[in-house]
Amino acid sequence: MSKTSLYLESLIKKLSRLPGVGPKSASRMAFHLLKIPREDAEALAAAILAARDHIHTCRICGGIADSDTCGICSDQGRDRGVICVLEEAKDVLTIEATGMFRGLYHVTKGLISPLDGIGPEQLNLNGLVDRCREDGVREAILALNPSVEGEATSLYIARILHPLGVRVTRIARGLPVGADIEYADSATIVKSLEGRVDL
Amino acid sequence: MSKTSLYLESLIKKLSRLPGVGPKSASRMAFHLLKIPREDAEALAAAILAARDHIHTCRICGGIADSDTCGICSDQGRDRGVICVLEEAKDVLTIEATGMFRGLYHVTKGLISPLDGIGPEQLNLNGLVDRCREDGVREAILALNPSVEGEATSLYIARILHPLGVRVTRIARGLPVGADIEYADSATIVKSLEGRVDL
Repeated sequence: MSKTSLYLESLIKKLSRLPGVGPKSASRMAFHLLKIPREDAEALAAAILAARDHIHTCRICGGIADSDTCGICSDQGRDRGVICVLEEAKDVLTIEATGMFRGLYHVTKGLISPLDGIGPEQLNLNGLVDRCREDGVREAILALNPSVEGEATSLYIARILHPLGVRVTRIARGLPVGADIEYADSATIVKSLEGRVDL
Repeated sequence: MSKTSLYLESLIKKLSRLPGVGPKSASRMAFHLLKIPREDAEALAAAILAARDHIHTCRICGGIADSDTCGICSDQGRDRGVICVLEEAKDVLTIEATGMFRGLYHVTKGLISPLDGIGPEQLNLNGLVDRCREDGVREAILALNPSVEGEATSLYIARILHPLGVRVTRIARGLPVGADIEYADSATIVKSLEGRVDL
């Protein structure tokens, strides 16, 4: 039995299942939702349901879309000769937030991971090969996470795209901007040495 | 116009208004809500609305309740002679989480703050005086925040409760458990010296 409110406890419990939210912040959020104007709380609840109801996967790139094709794939103003390859749909937002990339995207929906039983056939790669073959793609920029699985997947993609005459590149690894060499890990320093550029 | 999904953008925007949630964590939460089973997302939306619909303020202590009296005020097993005075309803959960306090609560719903035009008459203090007068309260433990406003409010409450023969105490100030003296601020160290106890 709840000492104060079952409804409050239920809300806190559900909020604390969100990523990065512990019991303390869930409690702060719950009290915030009780304090704000009623229509704002209703708008959040409605936005959760609307997102579930209306968000699609883009049939071309595998990213997030409101219809069967996303606004990026259907934007004729973008450079259709360059495709940035990402692991997850949310990575598209990260790259778009920089405002510096004008090409298209392709989401692999996972990485090759033999230990987890995930092979290349489980990933969204057929569409990538088709796009490279049919749409005059010049370059595929691989921006998968710098992990063992990301590395394996990058090498696999390079192997299947090279025969199509597509240039395959990978985003640079090195020290993050603003980082301190003193605190950088050895693996990153090795990558930054290997990837050194002429000045 | 959204490049990917208007529904996703709307959800991220609303999530980022929650306390302690920036754009990055809002985005992570939104993608989480798209990935989990549909019924779990619906349950969160429903919990937000249910909390708004069903949560009351306890007419006795001013805390959170599912009916007009909270489970703590109506629990005859608690020590009705001790009232812990708190600023906000959520502070009740913090004290209850310790499991060490067996008395009742009273929520002032604010602190005296002349600069913000908040005087004692705007706080939930009449109920506290009535409870101390009528319910055989022996002690009021003031657990308001250790700020200038909390201090002023504590002194005011002590002044109105003393004539009723109620013992008025305040929770101790000092170094938090696990803290390092080296990094403690001077005000805290002064309070910990003043509040020293014999061993």
